[in-house]
Amino acid sequence: MDIESNRAQIEAWLILLRAPGIGAARLRELIDRHRSAASALAAAVRGELAGDAAANRDWLRAPDRNLIEGDLAWLSQERHQLLTMHDADFPPLLRDTPGAPAALFVVGDASALWRPQIAIVGSRNASQGGLANARSFARALCAAGFAITSGLAEGIDAAAHTAALDAGAITVAVLGTGPDLVYPVRHRELASRIAASGALVSEFPPGVPGRPENFPRRNRIIAGLSLGTLIVEAGLRSGSLITARCATEHGRDVFAIPGSIHNPLARGCHQLIREGAMLVETADEIIAALAPLAARLGAHLRERLDEAEPQSAPAAPAARDAEYTKLLDALGHEALGVDALAERSGLGVPAISSMLLVLELEGEVAAQRGGLYARSHPARDI
Amino acid sequence: MDIESNRAQIEAWLILLRAPGIGAARLRELIDRHRSAASALAAAVRGELAGDAAANRDWLRAPDRNLIEGDLAWLSQERHQLLTMHDADFPPLLRDTPGAPAALFVVGDASALWRPQIAIVGSRNASQGGLANARSFARALCAAGFAITSGLAEGIDAAAHTAALDAGAITVAVLGTGPDLVYPVRHRELASRIAASGALVSEFPPGVPGRPENFPRRNRIIAGLSLGTLIVEAGLRSGSLITARCATEHGRDVFAIPGSIHNPLARGCHQLIREGAMLVETADEIIAALAPLAARLGAHLRERLDEAEPQSAPAAPAARDAEYTKLLDALGHEALGVDALAERSGLGVPAISSMLLVLELEGEVAAQRGGLYARSHPARDI
Repeated sequence: MDIESNRAQIEAWLILLRAPGIGAARLRELIDRHRSAASALAAAVRGELAGDAAANRDWLRAPDRNLIEGDLAWLSQERHQLLTMHDADFPPLLRDTPGAPAALFVVGDASALWRPQIAIVGSRNASQGGLANARSFARALCAAGFAITSGLAEGIDAAAHTAALDAGAITVAVLGTGPDLVYPVRHRELASRIAASGALVSEFPPGVPGRPENFPRRNRIIAGLSLGTLIVEAGLRSGSLITARCATEHGRDVFAIPGSIHNPLARGCHQLIREGAMLVETADEIIAALAPLAARLGAHLRERLDEAEPQSAPAAPAARDAEYTKLLDALGHEALGVDALAERSGLGVPAISSMLLVLELEGEVAAQRGGLYARSHPARDI
Repeated sequence: MDIESNRAQIEAWLILLRAPGIGAARLRELIDRHRSAASALAAAVRGELAGDAAANRDWLRAPDRNLIEGDLAWLSQERHQLLTMHDADFPPLLRDTPGAPAALFVVGDASALWRPQIAIVGSRNASQGGLANARSFARALCAAGFAITSGLAEGIDAAAHTAALDAGAITVAVLGTGPDLVYPVRHRELASRIAASGALVSEFPPGVPGRPENFPRRNRIIAGLSLGTLIVEAGLRSGSLITARCATEHGRDVFAIPGSIHNPLARGCHQLIREGAMLVETADEIIAALAPLAARLGAHLRERLDEAEPQSAPAAPAARDAEYTKLLDALGHEALGVDALAERSGLGVPAISSMLLVLELEGEVAAQRGGLYARSHPARDI
């Protein structure tokens, strides 16, 4: 949401997001009913709200202006953004989950959230073998066109983020703190690297510290953003199991890497496998399992794009094929990045991302190092 | 079958077992129809048999007397025995399987086959970790009162047999050769140790070498004798997977130990887990999973004992409880072996074996080192 043209709406969103005791579900319901955050806030201030929201009327009437001004100042910085559920580019997979946040604070490139993502999560105290597995699975999944989503924690999370960055691919970190904080502090440089090409995402407003109860909430967003969740190594009481269970509740696939029965950090993975998670030995198994869902996501994204651009007539199937042809023609003989493809083809970045994945899965396009894409077969002579 | 009193029947069995081209299923059907091997053979010699058995008429009319005399000589040795499907102590779990052999050559203690068994099988080229797992699972399962059944092969099989022997417990080896041969030859001493307390078992007559096609047949007997089958380590093309699939076809549980995705010998286990085998980290999980089946086996064995001893009236439930009381009273304050318990209680060894397992599962009796059993609770004062 553009802060210049929508200052009143954004202020209303911030006041509502910071209102004590309104959960994400209640907030979504409230704003949906009133069609905008400003109307919802106005109704609340007039005392028209029933139920538990009334308890927040004092805050809603007289919010802490310093906090809200601080949030607005934070949002006015470059590559800082509030992405609300009313924005057309709110990530559709996350929107589909029951516990979805009403809005996300984003640092970096919000279009990263449109990419087909796979969550890679696991223990903070991972073994060397676990870290190596996180890296190699992340690399292989990036090479197949997926972005890697994780929680910026030490251990498996950091290994997965770093491997994606080193491969020149996109990675998304979901924070358990406000978007201006980095936890753990030693991941400050990692967070900067992620924000430079991908995105840092938080449902918490600036300044919120990493309270223990924030991390399970963070985990549901990781699972919600992702087509599937891979658990690399996890103890039996690991937070990663929460991420896995959220994924299952969202109807998404859960993948787990088995390990030695003498490795306590394999226990969580084994428990998940017993509960129905797919045992995986290679990234290819994940790619194969997610291909149908990724293709559906691509179709879904195209539909939403059509809805989000009402000035153009709804694209008929032939028109969609035409878009694929346009994209393939734009690719020509060279390897290109998504931005260059957007410029050449006139298509939007989110649409291109999803189309590229479909084309990759169909074997038409190959992802290359550095976020470049090339045709798998020589381009036809034009 | 006692060779002195049943020489004619045993000779008929041997001639039929050695007849070329009669499979186990056909042989079982033939002998069942004629009610005894001698009648089946007589009918065959008279040319009364329909179907493919006719092709064997030449052999059946004029078998190689040297071979048969050799078999009889082998059977006349101490602790050598032919156990046919008509013998009351033919192992009931094996009898229930569709591909059961019509008879088994046994070296050692045939009553070992009545014990509740768990198969432990796996790769011949197991890793050190795999061998250690085979040993520790075997020890724990023996301590819970199970006998360990395997295939006398190098690697996992030998580790499981040896651990059972070292724990003073019973182990059963099923051979892919005749009962007079040991394959591999370096396991000759292991085979002697197994025969001294447990049993070597083969469906092949003396002298049959270890042809490649014998080992899958051997594997179905391992699975058929056992309440469940544990695969410790196995490659993707391992014969252990055949054993596991036989177990599944027999409706028995299959257990598999997961391992590192970088261990090629974990691949077979992972494949089985994907196909529905139970992922296990500890022997306790196997014991818990098999307890209901073991209890049913105990009940089944008691019923068969009742059938096999028609001189005594069928035991009513109260009579069965009385047998348990008799056994518990025989146990008194000391730890005793099964033979001593048989002498004291007047009950048969197979019945005692199954009752002991039921009592162990109920927590009344504890298995001790050296095949001894003791009451878990102090005996009531009498």
